[in-house]
Amino acid sequence: MTVHFSDRVGSRTLNPIAVAEREARAQGRTLARLNDSNPTRHGLSSAEVPWTYSAEPRGPRHARESLASYLTGLHGMEAGRVRDAAPVDPDDLYLLSSTSEAYSWLVKLLCDAGDAVLAPKPGYPLIESICGLECVDAIEYQLPFDGSWMIDVAGVEALLEGPDGGRIRALVVINPNNPSGSYVKPGERTRLVELCRDHGIALIADEVFFDYALEPFDGNARLAGERGVLTFALDGFSKMLAAPNAKVGWIQVSGPEEDVDEAKRRLDVIADDYLPMSDIIASRMDALLAVAGEQTALVLERVRDNLRRLHELLDADEHGLVSVLRAEGGWNVLLRFPSVIDENELVLRLIADHGLTGQPGYFFDMPSDGYLAISLLPEPDVFETQVRAVLDVVAAMIG
Amino acid sequence: MTVHFSDRVGSRTLNPIAVAEREARAQGRTLARLNDSNPTRHGLSSAEVPWTYSAEPRGPRHARESLASYLTGLHGMEAGRVRDAAPVDPDDLYLLSSTSEAYSWLVKLLCDAGDAVLAPKPGYPLIESICGLECVDAIEYQLPFDGSWMIDVAGVEALLEGPDGGRIRALVVINPNNPSGSYVKPGERTRLVELCRDHGIALIADEVFFDYALEPFDGNARLAGERGVLTFALDGFSKMLAAPNAKVGWIQVSGPEEDVDEAKRRLDVIADDYLPMSDIIASRMDALLAVAGEQTALVLERVRDNLRRLHELLDADEHGLVSVLRAEGGWNVLLRFPSVIDENELVLRLIADHGLTGQPGYFFDMPSDGYLAISLLPEPDVFETQVRAVLDVVAAMIG
Repeated sequence: MTVHFSDRVGSRTLNPIAVAEREARAQGRTLARLNDSNPTRHGLSSAEVPWTYSAEPRGPRHARESLASYLTGLHGMEAGRVRDAAPVDPDDLYLLSSTSEAYSWLVKLLCDAGDAVLAPKPGYPLIESICGLECVDAIEYQLPFDGSWMIDVAGVEALLEGPDGGRIRALVVINPNNPSGSYVKPGERTRLVELCRDHGIALIADEVFFDYALEPFDGNARLAGERGVLTFALDGFSKMLAAPNAKVGWIQVSGPEEDVDEAKRRLDVIADDYLPMSDIIASRMDALLAVAGEQTALVLERVRDNLRRLHELLDADEHGLVSVLRAEGGWNVLLRFPSVIDENELVLRLIADHGLTGQPGYFFDMPSDGYLAISLLPEPDVFETQVRAVLDVVAAMIG
Repeated sequence: MTVHFSDRVGSRTLNPIAVAEREARAQGRTLARLNDSNPTRHGLSSAEVPWTYSAEPRGPRHARESLASYLTGLHGMEAGRVRDAAPVDPDDLYLLSSTSEAYSWLVKLLCDAGDAVLAPKPGYPLIESICGLECVDAIEYQLPFDGSWMIDVAGVEALLEGPDGGRIRALVVINPNNPSGSYVKPGERTRLVELCRDHGIALIADEVFFDYALEPFDGNARLAGERGVLTFALDGFSKMLAAPNAKVGWIQVSGPEEDVDEAKRRLDVIADDYLPMSDIIASRMDALLAVAGEQTALVLERVRDNLRRLHELLDADEHGLVSVLRAEGGWNVLLRFPSVIDENELVLRLIADHGLTGQPGYFFDMPSDGYLAISLLPEPDVFETQVRAVLDVVAAMIG
């Protein structure tokens, strides 16, 4: 089934002038514009922003070429092994300010008001909030936990076949998910791609944490570049470069050719209305990419070291009341404590006694009480102090 | 009447943890976050993006302070004279990537799906396109021309009182309008502010071209800072710095206190989902503002010189078939040619014979045939060549 697109992007029939412009360009002619309001083409650029503005909907071409080259190398390595990955085409990339903006564009592309997307539970509430801003519902599908996390694929299918199925336009997959830290497994991927294709819906794969594997896991694979269904893979410098303040994100489009062509034609219209990638940032793309590898490695070492230390601290804890759910990837893990302790009470005690606040399981729609998300990013001594504070408060509340 | 806001931003009731966090901060306590996923606070910043990320919804505070200070000076000068303008408060500013993004946020803030905003005709189709992406209609109000442009204020009132009145949530005013180049006149402003206030709708004032006055005009005044009704003034470096590729825009909020407080509370939620202002750009805000004045002056000299030369060329033209509509401000003017000439045909001839394309009046919903928009930005010799090409083609098509 081909994918359904929203009516937000009107069908733009070409007027006679646009047709003539296209023909002239096809003949290799360069046309000047009588009402060109781009000052950078008329010798009026500031020395502080000295580049000629090209206003390309997908972002400045040189920046996309650099990024595509970097991603080709990155995607060719997985779990430390070289794999057979297709080169990333700069024309399949859309540069923008964040994955939040990417979600916003994709929801506009796919959903009319009142439509819905499927989003994972447990998960962060950002997707629901962004969908709300687009007048679209986020419907949860489940990731059950039985020692490791899995995607309830049968539940996804039931949602697609159920009463809301007709208004579901996309499946959001976070790979690895946050805060559960679980990667999409090969068997899950095969079924999800089939389900999306059979129901004419697109796959939105948020892979910002992909390169932060916390333990060796052979089956990890990016959804970026998936050809079986129209796929939008999201990534950015927020995690890859540990630079949420760079404000660089991107969408990589892949899938069956007909769907990809129509998606890009419509996404170009959306992108052309906003054109968010600054030349000030684009001009630094090469320098930013040059440090991306070492930045990822630096952060990966930190989160792995802290996870190791966390296990040591939990093993050494005399009370034995707190454990950590197995996390495969990402920057966060979930602590589990006795569910007789009220999640709010625990955090209120942490605030009062230790000046520490946090997000318990209900923030992420965990199915039961007794969870607390903690970040693996802090410097080791800070991390240890924070873990000890949690252990102390849990022990005090039980004891 | 207080302003109506959309349901897109949910009413967020504070959970017990958020209440405790607020109380702790009110007592001057600093809280650490157990699940802080901001790597820049944990010694993990890259040398290429070395700043600690503050994730302020309105944009980095130092950048807003610099901008507020600059705008205070700018707003205190109008038509070359010092006027009594209130200082701009950094907390009334939202930094983002473009005025397009500003429109998108404001439409989300004010309009549910199926609601509408009023937008000027003639005008650029961008607003209609952005509204479409938000599932909102743009309804046109008229700017008639009788030697100079005016706003059909009675027409605006009729729309607000008419069958669509109940779903109109904002009035968009471009000051000066594009491509008509007309400023909002003092009497129009008074009536429009009254109408908005009486109908509980907000004023969105796009003032990106404000400082490009093409002729002295005493009544020019910014709507930015208007206190009579909830007002969102839009501006950015695209025009002020002649740098559309800097991707810096902002919203200045003003109006009755109750409306402003509620608008900012809700706009903070929207801004917090996207946080588009990069620290790479924010770190250069002072350097960018330092050249803004000279950049505006440079471009202003160019457009005034070209307008003067345009009048000379039209006066000297032996056929006398082309005139220019009086333009008060901006970078574009409208040429008028005999309406027996088909607008498409004219441009097709320009493409074929001169490698020049352009946008005739129907692109902007001009009420009749015989108009062509031209930019005053090109370098003088290029500008003269372009104008002569138009004069030649018009003469050939009549002759």
